[in-house]
Amino acid sequence: MEDLIVIKIGGNLLDDDASLSAFLNDFAAIAGNKILIHGGGKLATGLAQTLGIETQMVNGRRITDKETLKVVTMVYAGLINKTIVSGLQARGCNALGLTGADANMILAHKRRHLEIDFGFVGDIDLVNTAPLAHFLNAGFVPVLAPLTHDGHGNMLNTNADTIAAALALALQAHYNTQLVFCFDKKGVLASSNENDVISRLTGTEYQRLREAGVISKGMLPKLENAFEALHAGVQSALICHASQLLPALRGEACGTRLVA
Amino acid sequence: MEDLIVIKIGGNLLDDDASLSAFLNDFAAIAGNKILIHGGGKLATGLAQTLGIETQMVNGRRITDKETLKVVTMVYAGLINKTIVSGLQARGCNALGLTGADANMILAHKRRHLEIDFGFVGDIDLVNTAPLAHFLNAGFVPVLAPLTHDGHGNMLNTNADTIAAALALALQAHYNTQLVFCFDKKGVLASSNENDVISRLTGTEYQRLREAGVISKGMLPKLENAFEALHAGVQSALICHASQLLPALRGEACGTRLVA
Repeated sequence: MEDLIVIKIGGNLLDDDASLSAFLNDFAAIAGNKILIHGGGKLATGLAQTLGIETQMVNGRRITDKETLKVVTMVYAGLINKTIVSGLQARGCNALGLTGADANMILAHKRRHLEIDFGFVGDIDLVNTAPLAHFLNAGFVPVLAPLTHDGHGNMLNTNADTIAAALALALQAHYNTQLVFCFDKKGVLASSNENDVISRLTGTEYQRLREAGVISKGMLPKLENAFEALHAGVQSALICHASQLLPALRGEACGTRLVA
Repeated sequence: MEDLIVIKIGGNLLDDDASLSAFLNDFAAIAGNKILIHGGGKLATGLAQTLGIETQMVNGRRITDKETLKVVTMVYAGLINKTIVSGLQARGCNALGLTGADANMILAHKRRHLEIDFGFVGDIDLVNTAPLAHFLNAGFVPVLAPLTHDGHGNMLNTNADTIAAALALALQAHYNTQLVFCFDKKGVLASSNENDVISRLTGTEYQRLREAGVISKGMLPKLENAFEALHAGVQSALICHASQLLPALRGEACGTRLVA
């Protein structure tokens, strides 16, 4: 089996031109099969505010109503996706921008919840690996926006970490798959010190640190997704600063390596 | 050689849910190789206005400055493209949404003009047919937004009629290609009467009607593009009302058939 690297970049990185440019240089330099999943950044929130669309929060969670869905579809699939695609093309990387609706790649359903109607938020049902494998075999580099569809004509807003893990999981049947989360910290931290990076994290140790409240709230979905993918057979999972992607992939001592 | 139908739908159609839905039903029902190119509609103008971005007109022509480019990239590649893609997927048509930057399909340069700086408006240099043929062979239905790129990291706003004609032209080496422009009139009109449709229009007759001022201004770019494609070998070109697409394709007497 060939190798495949599935890389997710967080939204914050997308808000800064210099960081994004440096990341695209690094990503374009990676040889072999690769897929990029990008988050949303603050652009969508800013645009929604400018348009006077209120961000509805229920129990601390964001709701995607019809108008918000239009905004995230514009910002994620339009502005951010094509900024990345044209940027990668300029670097000789044959990027192909996609959402889960394109080529029917990711089917999802509206989140079901007893108390809260999350609106157009999608939980993934199925990843169609055939089109993705097809694009990779043809030499394209898929660049995915965090959007899926329900098969009935609705786009759905779906967490980018979850999409990255679901793709890695689905594609491990065809490739030796490595899952990498790039963000704006040096890895999973053992304390509030930004340099106190846990270099190797097992599932057991993760549970312990989580119960002890050491691992911060924002890291939990990323880690849950990553460990789930690892347990299901994804070869390796790595969490690192976007600027350390290349050394981390070379196996240098940076970032946090997750161990099932 | 296999047949291919390249269909362009105008922007106005996209502003009305019922018309768009009817069109998607018809488009999904067409058998064989097909490509859809969509225009922009009034959505981009509306969004730009809401965002307080002034539409700059120079000598009656619209300028695409940096902020306007962001708006059209969001609206064309994001909202409109994904509305169409998810709508076609719901109808069992395996749509794949694209811009000219994706898979490096359409390279363009910023329009050169002695007096006017059009900003990020792209004139096409090259259509890469290989990725398009690849997608068609794999059973995908390409759905293109009216955006190209310059290969240096810039998206460019490009006329959808021009893209449709350029694609038909480039792909005629691989397919028996038919070019169809769908819009909100019954065809090329011989008078101000909406039912006075010219059923068959030769290049010579077009020049005559144009000089006589019979053919309206808005039709000129569409017809120029279509005749250019015809002269270069595209098998046939047709201009019809969106609601008459299927009968027109069956050869029934509707729309205007262009003859080189």
